[in-house]
Amino acid sequence: MRVGIIGATGLVGRTTLRILEERGFPVSELALFASERSTGERIEFKGEEYEVMTVGENWDLLADIFFCSVDDEVARGLLKGYEGDAWVIDKSKVFRMDPNVPLVVPEVNWNAVGESESRIIANPNCTTIPFVMALDAVRKVERPVRIVVTALQSASGAGKAALEELSLQREYLAADQKMPQDAKEVFPQILEANLIPQIGSFDKAGESSEERKLREESRKILGDAELQIHATCVRVPVEVGHSLAVSCVFEEKVDIKAIGDSLASFSGIVLVPDGELITPREVEGKDEVFCARLRYDPQDERVIHMWLAADNLKKGAALNAIQIAEKLTNP
Amino acid sequence: MRVGIIGATGLVGRTTLRILEERGFPVSELALFASERSTGERIEFKGEEYEVMTVGENWDLLADIFFCSVDDEVARGLLKGYEGDAWVIDKSKVFRMDPNVPLVVPEVNWNAVGESESRIIANPNCTTIPFVMALDAVRKVERPVRIVVTALQSASGAGKAALEELSLQREYLAADQKMPQDAKEVFPQILEANLIPQIGSFDKAGESSEERKLREESRKILGDAELQIHATCVRVPVEVGHSLAVSCVFEEKVDIKAIGDSLASFSGIVLVPDGELITPREVEGKDEVFCARLRYDPQDERVIHMWLAADNLKKGAALNAIQIAEKLTNP
Repeated sequence: MRVGIIGATGLVGRTTLRILEERGFPVSELALFASERSTGERIEFKGEEYEVMTVGENWDLLADIFFCSVDDEVARGLLKGYEGDAWVIDKSKVFRMDPNVPLVVPEVNWNAVGESESRIIANPNCTTIPFVMALDAVRKVERPVRIVVTALQSASGAGKAALEELSLQREYLAADQKMPQDAKEVFPQILEANLIPQIGSFDKAGESSEERKLREESRKILGDAELQIHATCVRVPVEVGHSLAVSCVFEEKVDIKAIGDSLASFSGIVLVPDGELITPREVEGKDEVFCARLRYDPQDERVIHMWLAADNLKKGAALNAIQIAEKLTNP
Repeated sequence: MRVGIIGATGLVGRTTLRILEERGFPVSELALFASERSTGERIEFKGEEYEVMTVGENWDLLADIFFCSVDDEVARGLLKGYEGDAWVIDKSKVFRMDPNVPLVVPEVNWNAVGESESRIIANPNCTTIPFVMALDAVRKVERPVRIVVTALQSASGAGKAALEELSLQREYLAADQKMPQDAKEVFPQILEANLIPQIGSFDKAGESSEERKLREESRKILGDAELQIHATCVRVPVEVGHSLAVSCVFEEKVDIKAIGDSLASFSGIVLVPDGELITPREVEGKDEVFCARLRYDPQDERVIHMWLAADNLKKGAALNAIQIAEKLTNP
């Protein structure tokens, strides 16, 4: 299988390469693309070096399957009106809500690929993926009438520059030095030793674009346009690993054991035993979505709570895309 | 007014002294107490030095009003069966749920002091105080049928040793060094660059003691034993400043403007304009509870969301206690 990586030098691009290697994905040829700034860089894959190219005309003939992890604007410019034969698994938000493009978490809605004629498959937002997997496991038992979620999202969700900014801020703080103005460019506030209750931009009603994505993408993936999802997204000073505090409200009392069983048997979810924790630091590098602290609300058994954590670069991004590719090549 | 501080060398004790000075509280005599370990230490107050003593017999005769910020066990030993005349404003959890002891946020339920004969007044948990103030402002417009809250609590809520642990962990991380085993004693996991979804201990049902406190204390202060409060408490790698993501569900559509007005006019609350943020770093050293991102849920106007932040050492602890003392001395 000829594989192309567009955005090969970014965080998600590099993670994609590492996971392709780890999982032994059958790569017969490899084409690496990035912006002009990175052209000529050399990246190793399975012991061989590959030179990074810019995307030229007829780029889509150079591989059978592309992983695309670039900025929204670049993805739009490259893929709008795409009519090639190669599969493109796109990580941008551009096509996610396009009714003609399937938005896919393989464990949840693989069927969407078969039902579409699109050769672009959209990869969901890094917070949506763990959330929607847990929600799918829950609704196999009972559909919640409301879900309230606080998503605590790590810096790497905002890319390489964000990670560097956090690291620089930490060095200043650890050395007890005043931070210079340029220690804050990616995020609207200092992130180290802080929390920023804004991811993306706010609309007129005060909702952030990240909160809207989490709701709308989840509804599309679950095929449940009316599902009530109330989200608050917060950036936290963690390198890798998104966490979610999730509360589900049901019409009637639910059987929490049945929900626990459904979560535990869901492909890609690990149910952490009662009384044990899972923290974002611990999920870095892991493939699975971890679910801990599953519990009834002590006052009302129509309400359950859980804590989710997943590596946002792996299952939240690159791994999900590769799982899509694995299903495409080996259905 | 003769003032005594029990636990004068701790984080909250020192903050109490600083605020007494800042606010010009009428201190005629000052008695400072701490554990034997700290006896003999000298602490400055208004330019004079005071020697720290251990608590001896008839300690309660040495002041008219005491601020007590010590461990629960020490507070229990000292204050159980207390029959003195001096007021004791106690920061421990020991008496908070005692039906004979008022649990007070002056802006919310000062009346509880007049209705009780107790000379002990309990100061609520540092997360409860900002939460219950905002909730009181909300229910002046309409009582929610459910409140879902994710509390993101800073390290200083766990005391001085917790802050030192976080700072040490940051130094290791910034220097890219492996952390030694003793870099983790106060918290069950590394806190720096991480989130720990456990504060206090878990009960059999999986709820943490902090989550229970937040619910039960809020109900007592608001005099609303049936209020549905669904809490998740998470420790975050922030020095000072607790934040809360709060969602309120109402029976009918609410008037969000009326709720905004009620919050803005509530003594001690600052309503942050739409589109602006407030982060925990920014509230350090501030007296007020800040409320930002007040918004309707975009799918359901029976649901509103808000983001709260407050300095957990000030309004969350020392300042609230001093405001109680101010009301006692100048009703």
